[in-house]
Amino acid sequence: MGELSTLFAPECVAVVGASDEPGTVGHAITKNLRDDFEGTVVPVNPNRENVLGLECYDSVREASEADITVDVAVVVVPPTIALDVIEEAAQTGVENVVVITAGFSEAGSEGSGRERELVALAEKYDLNLVGPNSLGIMSTTVGLNATFGPRSASPGNISFMSQSGAFITAVLDWAADRHLGFKDVVSLGNKAVLDESDFIRQWGDDEGTDVILGYLEDIGDGRSFIDTAQTVTRETPMVVVKSGRTEAGASAAASHTGAIAGSDTAYRAGLEQAGVLRVETVQDLFDFASILAGQPLPETEGVAIVSNAGGPGVMATDAVGDSSLELATFSDETLARLEDRLPSEANLYNPVDIIGDATIDRFEDTIDIVLDDENVGMAVVLSCPTAVLSYEELAEVIASLHEKHGTPVATALMGGSSTETAAHTLSESGIPTYFDPERAVRSLDALARYARRRDHEYETPAQFDIDRERIDEILTAAVESGQTRLGVESMDLLEACEIPTPTGEVVNSPRRATAVAREIDGDVVMKIVSPDISHKSDIGGVEIGVATEEVADTYEDLVVRARNYQPDAKVLGVQIQEMVDVDAGTESIVGVTRDPQFGPLVMFGLGGIFVEVMEDTAFRVAPVAESAVREMVDEITSSPLLYGARGRERADVDALVEVIQRISQLVTEFPVITELDINPVVVLPDGVAAIDLRLTLDPDAVTTEVDS
Amino acid sequence: MGELSTLFAPECVAVVGASDEPGTVGHAITKNLRDDFEGTVVPVNPNRENVLGLECYDSVREASEADITVDVAVVVVPPTIALDVIEEAAQTGVENVVVITAGFSEAGSEGSGRERELVALAEKYDLNLVGPNSLGIMSTTVGLNATFGPRSASPGNISFMSQSGAFITAVLDWAADRHLGFKDVVSLGNKAVLDESDFIRQWGDDEGTDVILGYLEDIGDGRSFIDTAQTVTRETPMVVVKSGRTEAGASAAASHTGAIAGSDTAYRAGLEQAGVLRVETVQDLFDFASILAGQPLPETEGVAIVSNAGGPGVMATDAVGDSSLELATFSDETLARLEDRLPSEANLYNPVDIIGDATIDRFEDTIDIVLDDENVGMAVVLSCPTAVLSYEELAEVIASLHEKHGTPVATALMGGSSTETAAHTLSESGIPTYFDPERAVRSLDALARYARRRDHEYETPAQFDIDRERIDEILTAAVESGQTRLGVESMDLLEACEIPTPTGEVVNSPRRATAVAREIDGDVVMKIVSPDISHKSDIGGVEIGVATEEVADTYEDLVVRARNYQPDAKVLGVQIQEMVDVDAGTESIVGVTRDPQFGPLVMFGLGGIFVEVMEDTAFRVAPVAESAVREMVDEITSSPLLYGARGRERADVDALVEVIQRISQLVTEFPVITELDINPVVVLPDGVAAIDLRLTLDPDAVTTEVDS
Repeated sequence: MGELSTLFAPECVAVVGASDEPGTVGHAITKNLRDDFEGTVVPVNPNRENVLGLECYDSVREASEADITVDVAVVVVPPTIALDVIEEAAQTGVENVVVITAGFSEAGSEGSGRERELVALAEKYDLNLVGPNSLGIMSTTVGLNATFGPRSASPGNISFMSQSGAFITAVLDWAADRHLGFKDVVSLGNKAVLDESDFIRQWGDDEGTDVILGYLEDIGDGRSFIDTAQTVTRETPMVVVKSGRTEAGASAAASHTGAIAGSDTAYRAGLEQAGVLRVETVQDLFDFASILAGQPLPETEGVAIVSNAGGPGVMATDAVGDSSLELATFSDETLARLEDRLPSEANLYNPVDIIGDATIDRFEDTIDIVLDDENVGMAVVLSCPTAVLSYEELAEVIASLHEKHGTPVATALMGGSSTETAAHTLSESGIPTYFDPERAVRSLDALARYARRRDHEYETPAQFDIDRERIDEILTAAVESGQTRLGVESMDLLEACEIPTPTGEVVNSPRRATAVAREIDGDVVMKIVSPDISHKSDIGGVEIGVATEEVADTYEDLVVRARNYQPDAKVLGVQIQEMVDVDAGTESIVGVTRDPQFGPLVMFGLGGIFVEVMEDTAFRVAPVAESAVREMVDEITSSPLLYGARGRERADVDALVEVIQRISQLVTEFPVITELDINPVVVLPDGVAAIDLRLTLDPDAVTTEVDS
Repeated sequence: MGELSTLFAPECVAVVGASDEPGTVGHAITKNLRDDFEGTVVPVNPNRENVLGLECYDSVREASEADITVDVAVVVVPPTIALDVIEEAAQTGVENVVVITAGFSEAGSEGSGRERELVALAEKYDLNLVGPNSLGIMSTTVGLNATFGPRSASPGNISFMSQSGAFITAVLDWAADRHLGFKDVVSLGNKAVLDESDFIRQWGDDEGTDVILGYLEDIGDGRSFIDTAQTVTRETPMVVVKSGRTEAGASAAASHTGAIAGSDTAYRAGLEQAGVLRVETVQDLFDFASILAGQPLPETEGVAIVSNAGGPGVMATDAVGDSSLELATFSDETLARLEDRLPSEANLYNPVDIIGDATIDRFEDTIDIVLDDENVGMAVVLSCPTAVLSYEELAEVIASLHEKHGTPVATALMGGSSTETAAHTLSESGIPTYFDPERAVRSLDALARYARRRDHEYETPAQFDIDRERIDEILTAAVESGQTRLGVESMDLLEACEIPTPTGEVVNSPRRATAVAREIDGDVVMKIVSPDISHKSDIGGVEIGVATEEVADTYEDLVVRARNYQPDAKVLGVQIQEMVDVDAGTESIVGVTRDPQFGPLVMFGLGGIFVEVMEDTAFRVAPVAESAVREMVDEITSSPLLYGARGRERADVDALVEVIQRISQLVTEFPVITELDINPVVVLPDGVAAIDLRLTLDPDAVTTEVDS
């Protein structure tokens, strides 16, 4: 039972705007409710005495005065009067409202204004409000079909939310002859009040929901989504199509990280961190839903393949290779038992080929033996049609062995209409069957992927003792002086986060430059410091290995070059920095960009070429815990370079991981930082050094923070 | 008409081993032929007077003596007598034999011996021999079902070969209620004589075949396959599942290239070069076949999407983004026409959303207008079920507009059984419909990919004037002295190919070393030369930047280090080489490995990290033409580094391309070279320099060459 349980299991539903007139939405909803709903249906329409044979009330208030307690009001009246009727319903104590009415934020500025009023109303009365612009909701346990769609869902254990109402209509039509049953269905509409996270929370608490499915076009509050889904997916798998993946989301970003992060990057990272199985096709959405709704989770990841034909066995083996699974290695006992039962032409090893003359008994023996093997966590049974085999019998054998062993099974009983009865038998045991062996394997892979996520421990991000006061001073000073782009002059920020940086200072005279250089052992690096010059190296604004005696002259040179390049550039001075032996380490980039939905997004990659040319990067929504940062580091293809590949010395990955965590904490605590690049962070055999810094501030974000 | 046209369109077929006994293969084949074949069926069995009501002969000879000309003999007798009956049939003039009989190379050494005899027999009599161990063949134009499978194929324009007979059985059962028709079907069996290339050639010449499909587990002669398929796919598209993709093909290779090339690398390169559309799932195999068999090729690659629901429109847009296609940009005229016809809530821009109340007329107007736009090369029509729309009518409208405009169309009329009649109507116009918008887009993508391949110009590889005599001398000398691994001592080979190498020489005394160094401008590089030491750098066997006066001492050092590392290592001397300014260029690797099926496979990638850590490589079956080499270079992700990315100087890609072509020619002309690495080839702003060489010889390959 979740907070929205009355919404999905009401005893009384009012249709505000009910109608007798076929073809109207008010008619369709009232009819759907009257036909199937177990509770009371209350049509509301001031112009009718009754609707579809049900007594009709002038208003929800009138119904209330007649001692009718309305649990859910479904609103289909025109937008101009919708707010009034909702407020009236709220005043009579209605807590759940489904707004079918369109003409809100999807319909221009007038509608947007109306939607803001709707939100205020919902807040005032603490309403659970679905929509507006929704197809409605369904819940099969009480026969609730409060939609204007032509079909009710069949009962089952999948709850489904969709940002496209039409897609729900299509899915229910398609699911009708596909043994796919639903618990609750909700058309999210404009998500003015209740959004995806609310329904995830509800279904996570709902015993009738075993799988949560979503078709989402956007996610309003990414952080809340991650937090909710992370908890819910520990018990209930969630499969989501997030569409709009490939739209051209070219944002004018000032940082590397911002430029590299595409429009879908945050969704990719966020959905992954949320523990959601993201899919890209409708086929995967329902294939994964079917198996997750019907099968237990595997205890180990080895897959056994049993086939009466070699070809399909090889195809399934290829599919296992493409998946995150592996072929099970049979125990000696299993092999001995198989050898005892199978003809000499059979292949005992996985994939087991019991050859074309396999009878039902041979299938039964073989499946029973392999499912007995503790190395087998899942099984795929494949069959081509033969004269000696009945698919109906085979389906029964598979279903009963599945029940006996409790091991997840998927099948490809290959054929056309000859497979229909068998498919039905299998589906009653929650076992999917496809023509294509690949789909059977892919489904099992979804089970195993979910099992891994369920077992994943989500650590709480570490809290480092960073110098918040100093950071705040630096950022406030910058904002107050109108600076929005900071560079190496703000290396103090990193020091305040206890991120190691080379000794150095920004100076504004040749004399001071020489003085600083003198305090540094050996030659120094000198860089021009100007908020107007992003690519310092390109204009000769960086000199490496400058001897102390040359520092003063070099200072002048750097300033002259900057002036020549851009006469009006504001030059803050020159940075004098201790030399870091870059060749002894591996250059990396730690960056941050800020996503409108998910907030700060941390990026990691190795030096320039790997990030810019190879696009070999890892992203996570901040804050990130240590284990997640380690995953980021290991996720990039070039990570072996950090671990001693090609005769390198192993880099201090622990120190790097700490830097990324500290940056994650910095940008989480200081939303004024909208973009950040530390490029490079040199990862040395012992320690790290953050060499260069660039960041972008958003003064409005600071204001917001101060206001709150 | 191809060489095998009699095989697929015989007038008279004999079944040698025909039988009256149900359940036997001889019975099943005879029955299939008797029931459907338009020509004469001649049962052969010395123990019967007649079989299934047909007059039976003791032998093919007897039939021949009765003036019966047998075009195809289908052989089902036991393996022990199969050879005899085939020889007898051949002697009477039978040219085509389908050997159903098993017990050949698939069944141990005795069977392999029998198969060799079968091949000899086929050569002696110039037989077109299918199998052995085949399910048989079909050809729907003459009602030929010479298989023992339970189902005949429906007539159509797809010809299908499969290395798995069971898979054919499954496919025909499945295809029966899916509007998928076949011209010829062949179960390849052991491919002792006729193999995939023979059937490709046949179907390329066959007017009844519009699409060639294959399920292949291996390809015997890769080169012949490429040559044949390259020609055939100019006219006839070919879609192939090559299974066994992910088997662990760990070969103990001595070269980088050999170690990087997995078991599937040659197939991947070879199928691509052959112009074949390779797919990985059965679903793609038949989805692609359907659309290629039913739809014209697109003239441009812009896709228009028309939908009555936003969600599915976005899903289709995502699928276009994932594909090789692009969304069409409508002309102003199209937009004006759409605006004129569509309600204001509609979205005129691609993907066009004609919204949920769209009638059949609105669909018709919209599809007609977008297909009129010359930027639209293909269209996807999507629909969710609504009360105002009949899928049957929509299907008819789509089919007729498709006919009017001649533009390829795929559809997703989303729903369940409500779509069946519509699907039938569409399929009669060759238009596929799926529930999943992604599959519709993916199918169109297959059309466009084939159109691109058909238009691809296959250049003849250039023939460079390499010094064959000198190459032969070097290789022969190595083989004669028992060397199979060569290193920098054989840099002459590269010179003989006119591949630029730094000035250098292998010397075997400190004095000679100094003399050589003196002739070279500036410092030199010195490397130990030993066939027993592969990783010279790792043991301190390479010194860079050695001044002339230090050359003699360094010589001694290098030899001592080699001795310390491996006392029994054969040291051939020390190479003295001109310094190349590696930093001024980009390091790359050009390598060759040899695949048992496809022969020499050329690899290209940038320096060590990119190849070994990032696995950023491109492979082609040699010989490769210039355009294909340019594709290789551009195919790697790191290629921008050659073209001046990140402020580099643009490298001399032309010179690099020539080196790869010359290496391709070298290994094609000299099969004794089984593996080769030039690592690095430094690509300079002006020219290239091949710095280091390693190669492996196979003396047997030389012997073969001398023999032939």
